[in-house]
Amino acid sequence: MKVAGKLPIRVKYLIEGEEEIGSPNLDAIIHKLRDRLACDYVALSDTPKFDKTTPAITYGTKGLIYKELILTGPKQNLHSGSYGGTLTNPGNAAAVIIAALRDADDRVTIPGFYDAVRPISDSERKQMKALPFDEKAYQDAMGCPALTGEKGYTTLERRWARPTLDVNGMYGGFMGPGASTVIPAKIGVKVSMRIVPDQDPEKINKAFEETVNRLCPPGVKMEILTHSYCSAYAAPTDSPGMRAAADALKAGFGKPPVFIREGGTLPILPLFKKELGADSIMMGFCMPDCNAHGPNEFFGLDDLHNGTKAAAHFVQLLAKAR
Amino acid sequence: MKVAGKLPIRVKYLIEGEEEIGSPNLDAIIHKLRDRLACDYVALSDTPKFDKTTPAITYGTKGLIYKELILTGPKQNLHSGSYGGTLTNPGNAAAVIIAALRDADDRVTIPGFYDAVRPISDSERKQMKALPFDEKAYQDAMGCPALTGEKGYTTLERRWARPTLDVNGMYGGFMGPGASTVIPAKIGVKVSMRIVPDQDPEKINKAFEETVNRLCPPGVKMEILTHSYCSAYAAPTDSPGMRAAADALKAGFGKPPVFIREGGTLPILPLFKKELGADSIMMGFCMPDCNAHGPNEFFGLDDLHNGTKAAAHFVQLLAKAR
Repeated sequence: MKVAGKLPIRVKYLIEGEEEIGSPNLDAIIHKLRDRLACDYVALSDTPKFDKTTPAITYGTKGLIYKELILTGPKQNLHSGSYGGTLTNPGNAAAVIIAALRDADDRVTIPGFYDAVRPISDSERKQMKALPFDEKAYQDAMGCPALTGEKGYTTLERRWARPTLDVNGMYGGFMGPGASTVIPAKIGVKVSMRIVPDQDPEKINKAFEETVNRLCPPGVKMEILTHSYCSAYAAPTDSPGMRAAADALKAGFGKPPVFIREGGTLPILPLFKKELGADSIMMGFCMPDCNAHGPNEFFGLDDLHNGTKAAAHFVQLLAKAR
Repeated sequence: MKVAGKLPIRVKYLIEGEEEIGSPNLDAIIHKLRDRLACDYVALSDTPKFDKTTPAITYGTKGLIYKELILTGPKQNLHSGSYGGTLTNPGNAAAVIIAALRDADDRVTIPGFYDAVRPISDSERKQMKALPFDEKAYQDAMGCPALTGEKGYTTLERRWARPTLDVNGMYGGFMGPGASTVIPAKIGVKVSMRIVPDQDPEKINKAFEETVNRLCPPGVKMEILTHSYCSAYAAPTDSPGMRAAADALKAGFGKPPVFIREGGTLPILPLFKKELGADSIMMGFCMPDCNAHGPNEFFGLDDLHNGTKAAAHFVQLLAKAR
């Protein structure tokens, strides 16, 4: 605006203040205003650079299906001596169910789970291999004794392009310090799946429920809760908009961006695609270790200036993009 | 004393007030006073009648080995999207370990676990079968959907004479209501085994630790705590003391007692046997549903009077027992 006096394209802003409480009204608003929001691309900047000096375009996110299994055996915690051996223990039952959901190669055993998974293309695989990803530094940052995961894939492939199934929490029975010899009345397990393109969350959710019901031993009741439910998202990297974004980041940061994916979930991306038919372009300006949502969150002044420049270039380049 | 003016045998009392805090000084005291406590039989009454009208002698209890497995993966809870698929999840690992400790027939898979288990003799099996045990009422009291357990054994055999392995509690990761997409840094599982004669707690404990270490997947650290550790106990039912006790209960309650076992653990019984060489005779005076240690605990006046009579008869009969 300062340089040219006017914007070369029409820009619409969608500003929403409810993300941290799960955006309870966003779906309805976007659906209601879909005509007013109509656009060619959605641009957002909720993703990081690849490292200190390398900007990044995130072109894919995983979806999420978050479940909770609540297993109930006896009507109250029972003395494990007086009653043990004569009823199904919800804790043992929970372990049997969860253990059977993955095999020794860390693959999910739910029938049909991998059927629709979009394979990693040769070019994408090469691109990931070419990234200067430091496995040792990544492991040290997590502080775990080893990197593990699905057989046949690299760490980055597992992180970005392969579906997962993880326990998020377990609770029930005696949880205090020391010992109490009870058979728990109730055990809960929170378990979620990160899904990838083109897995259908509805199909996977149904297959999950059928599988855990089949695995549940006799003698316990199981309640299944669904806490969330969202598709994965992947944008084509060769669209005119993507090319414009890549050139804009190069102009802003002095270095071409890398194309990366993200294991996290942004429910808004498949929503934009569905309601507006538009792909999202995620230009990363912040540091990957910026402690987002945590103590000491930061955003560097150089990233602020370079990001501003990149955004201006993007508008300019997008106007000319074909 | 009132009737005969003096007791026909010598009676020693051991009164201890620390049971509810785990009797931390009892072992040392009994060991120190073993000569003063020397006796032919130990009589105690910490067990119930079989039902309202039938007194019981409990001749066996299970032992207990209580462990806690603490599995640690990353140094803190991690975002399951950003990190999932690249490290071992302590929750999934815990499920794998616990599930593998029992097979589909509800038998414990720890190598050698059943080697020393004293088989249920034909006469004991007949005796158990003859008891008027109401499975339906037992299940209803627990409030669970089915009675289950080790294949090839009846409910009473499982309760009294077969070893078990039970989860007592699980905790870790996100345990609140709703969803949080973390990979837990730490998951704890409390798990205990009730053992039977002649399983050696030291051997079983060692085999348990070897087994869980073998089952623990790479990528997590496992700490193993031991909370308790105690032998099973079984007294011969055909000793002069047992015959005297049976006759005494018949005289006190007007009905001969049944011989039963108990799935719970009384660490004092193997301790008496070891330090004093004496078997214990457990005469049950209270109701099986007396809410011991719970709200509304009760002891009937008729049981008080009949129990008093039985105790007097026992002293008399024991003096003549051969």
